[in-house]
Amino acid sequence: MKYDVKDIFKEECIGKEVIIEGWVRNHRKQKEFGFIDFSDGTCFTHLQIVYDNLINNFEEIQKIKNGSSICVYGQIVKSEGKGQNIELKAKDIKLLGDCPDDYPMQPKQHTREFLREQAYLRPRTNLFQAVFRVRSVAAMAIHTYFQTNGYVYAHTPLITANDGEGAGQMFQVTTLDLEKIAKLGKVELDKDFYGKKVGLAVTGQLEAETFALAFKKTYTFGPTFRAENSNTKTHASEFWMIEPEIAFCDLNENMDIMESMLKFVVKYVLDNCKSEMEFLDKFVEKGLINKLTKLLNSKFTRIDHEEVITILKQSGIKWEFEPEYGKDIAKEHEKYITEYFNGPVFIKNWPKDIKAFYMKLNEDNETVAAVDLEVPGAGELMGGSQREESYEKLVNRMKELNMSFDGLDWYLNLRKYGGCVHSGFGMGFERLLIYLTGVDNIRDVIPYPRTPGNCEY
Amino acid sequence: MKYDVKDIFKEECIGKEVIIEGWVRNHRKQKEFGFIDFSDGTCFTHLQIVYDNLINNFEEIQKIKNGSSICVYGQIVKSEGKGQNIELKAKDIKLLGDCPDDYPMQPKQHTREFLREQAYLRPRTNLFQAVFRVRSVAAMAIHTYFQTNGYVYAHTPLITANDGEGAGQMFQVTTLDLEKIAKLGKVELDKDFYGKKVGLAVTGQLEAETFALAFKKTYTFGPTFRAENSNTKTHASEFWMIEPEIAFCDLNENMDIMESMLKFVVKYVLDNCKSEMEFLDKFVEKGLINKLTKLLNSKFTRIDHEEVITILKQSGIKWEFEPEYGKDIAKEHEKYITEYFNGPVFIKNWPKDIKAFYMKLNEDNETVAAVDLEVPGAGELMGGSQREESYEKLVNRMKELNMSFDGLDWYLNLRKYGGCVHSGFGMGFERLLIYLTGVDNIRDVIPYPRTPGNCEY
Repeated sequence: MKYDVKDIFKEECIGKEVIIEGWVRNHRKQKEFGFIDFSDGTCFTHLQIVYDNLINNFEEIQKIKNGSSICVYGQIVKSEGKGQNIELKAKDIKLLGDCPDDYPMQPKQHTREFLREQAYLRPRTNLFQAVFRVRSVAAMAIHTYFQTNGYVYAHTPLITANDGEGAGQMFQVTTLDLEKIAKLGKVELDKDFYGKKVGLAVTGQLEAETFALAFKKTYTFGPTFRAENSNTKTHASEFWMIEPEIAFCDLNENMDIMESMLKFVVKYVLDNCKSEMEFLDKFVEKGLINKLTKLLNSKFTRIDHEEVITILKQSGIKWEFEPEYGKDIAKEHEKYITEYFNGPVFIKNWPKDIKAFYMKLNEDNETVAAVDLEVPGAGELMGGSQREESYEKLVNRMKELNMSFDGLDWYLNLRKYGGCVHSGFGMGFERLLIYLTGVDNIRDVIPYPRTPGNCEY
Repeated sequence: MKYDVKDIFKEECIGKEVIIEGWVRNHRKQKEFGFIDFSDGTCFTHLQIVYDNLINNFEEIQKIKNGSSICVYGQIVKSEGKGQNIELKAKDIKLLGDCPDDYPMQPKQHTREFLREQAYLRPRTNLFQAVFRVRSVAAMAIHTYFQTNGYVYAHTPLITANDGEGAGQMFQVTTLDLEKIAKLGKVELDKDFYGKKVGLAVTGQLEAETFALAFKKTYTFGPTFRAENSNTKTHASEFWMIEPEIAFCDLNENMDIMESMLKFVVKYVLDNCKSEMEFLDKFVEKGLINKLTKLLNSKFTRIDHEEVITILKQSGIKWEFEPEYGKDIAKEHEKYITEYFNGPVFIKNWPKDIKAFYMKLNEDNETVAAVDLEVPGAGELMGGSQREESYEKLVNRMKELNMSFDGLDWYLNLRKYGGCVHSGFGMGFERLLIYLTGVDNIRDVIPYPRTPGNCEY
């Protein structure tokens, strides 16, 4: 009977005869027998296959190369060797798909840079078997958290005429022929697919608010785009975001949700990716599992931005960037503050001028009910706010910022038609993955990353 | 204590005192008392609130308008009225957010066309409370099916230089200034964000295959784009697709998976959206629940395309489009064939010339191992195929079709590096939703639909 390797490890299989199909990760040949390090991709742990010269076609089998796909029939036996409890004693091995000697994924240490160039083959390595399975399981954790807690999953549009963050770093989307524009010397926007200038969404928040004001609790989980020309370890031009929005929810309740969601996801991944997390703990970030377990047991600190600045100023440290009241904080400050409190910190009530237009203005008229979550070892992991529920204040703020009201009347109307206190937050999925896996470059947690100048596959 | 209405209906609540926050869907006032049809969006069923003139601020409360948000404190009591078992006897009602008289969502029948124009408010109507909750629950059903069965969720790229289907209906994505192109009279592609021409993905299949050949079982679930200028009930330019890919899986096993997934999702939605489905059955498609229940109990027929043509030809029917061997079939044929077999039908082994380049060529050299699933009342719901695993045959087919090999070397290499029999399929999520909800226009199952000339919100 055909088996997934995952099930062979799960069940009590000793003595059972099985058929498995998968790939040769490493083939060690000796004169009278051989060992195949075998993976079918269904679990992180490989199965060792042993065969000896009593098998049919022993000589042919010895020629099977790394990377080939094979079908093996044999019996599960207790392993005498180190590093595994069971192995497969092969009675028959068939080559399904050959693999040439110049196969790039030979069983040796490859640099991450090399693997990025072979992005389509890297899921076959231990590192990316771990990272992309954690990615998949973490995605399921997020859906499970929100659906179990009564949130409606909203698919907000990707092509949009709105620049939600007012950041202006949008990709344009068009069906106009650029060469023809050059030739004609004019842009006929009325002939474009949507008859106007549109681009790729930088956020789904504004549309998600319309769902929150109908379903009370909603979340998005989808791709987001930024045409930002940054070549850093944490920036990609295409990434996935989670954006929950909750009606009748103030900033404090918002923080409750942020904390409970993060803990749920971390626990879910630790529970469901044991082998992967052990591998990452051993080879990528020493202490990873401890770090995450500690988070589960932390009570997150909640502190005003102003107090944070005071703590930073009183620290006696010579900062690269001097902390200032009313200003943003730098990476070094984030790091210090999580160490100071020895755990995750919600920094709340930020100066309005460094935050987005839709955040609720506090009574001091200077700060907004915004919050960033800083976690030890990763810095900012999420950001959120209570949304401005007052029509007048929102309009005033948009005027102050010289924002156009074009195409945002519906957003303003949410405040007129049964508006209410509501809040939400955003979490970059890749930022979470960097934190969960210890892998420090966003290019290594996305299957096919897009960065300036890079759009392969 | 604050309650979600959902929990009030779920728990044995009679006698309990609760606080609820939500919206007035309809306010019926009488001289000495009033009824509020109340929804907080957490479940489909509304809660009736009753109050009488002994309540504080009776006169103020009587002025509360439809659409307003309110906070109510009261006691859950058995209802004397028709249509509900329990109601809330209010002891205190506070207005949170007012709503003007010209609020568009008054409690009366609105046309779907009108509601499309008010897309940001339509989630507040019964129809869209039902449709968008089914959408959310169906999405969870899909994730649950695949994750429970060991599939890895792959986020394939949305911005891509590949035209996966060879269909050429891609949106272009650019950071070049079109006005500047017109002025300069030339397109400086090297200055574009990715340094080359890129567009929005029409499929994630090719990249998903790279995951299947590493993880054995993978699926995508994400947005897809087609710049197709069709204004039909079933076409949108932005929609969500599910694309599973499975290694060591032939066409027959592929059909097993298609059938089991569809049945799982249908059952999950029927189980988890009882009130919504009853509403849709009553007001949108009579017999909807029966149709779906029947599907669950059907064994899907499997039949070759050629045999289908024979059946159509022998039917004695005067067709609008004459069925022909070697050609595609029309909507009327799809309908007939599901009625003929009285259930879902897999039509397999299609003429190669009407199918995609990557489908496995059968030994007859004329057909490919492709399959479409036709379901009663909806026509084609999914399409899939065994993928061509032979490097030579794939290259030959691409040459026959004059396809460029540019940027597809990695896809071909999958056949060289431990290739194997593998299969997959695609399902348009909105097509599934149309089938599940009975709502017949794709514009009404997407929160903010994009069609030619339409890109609001």
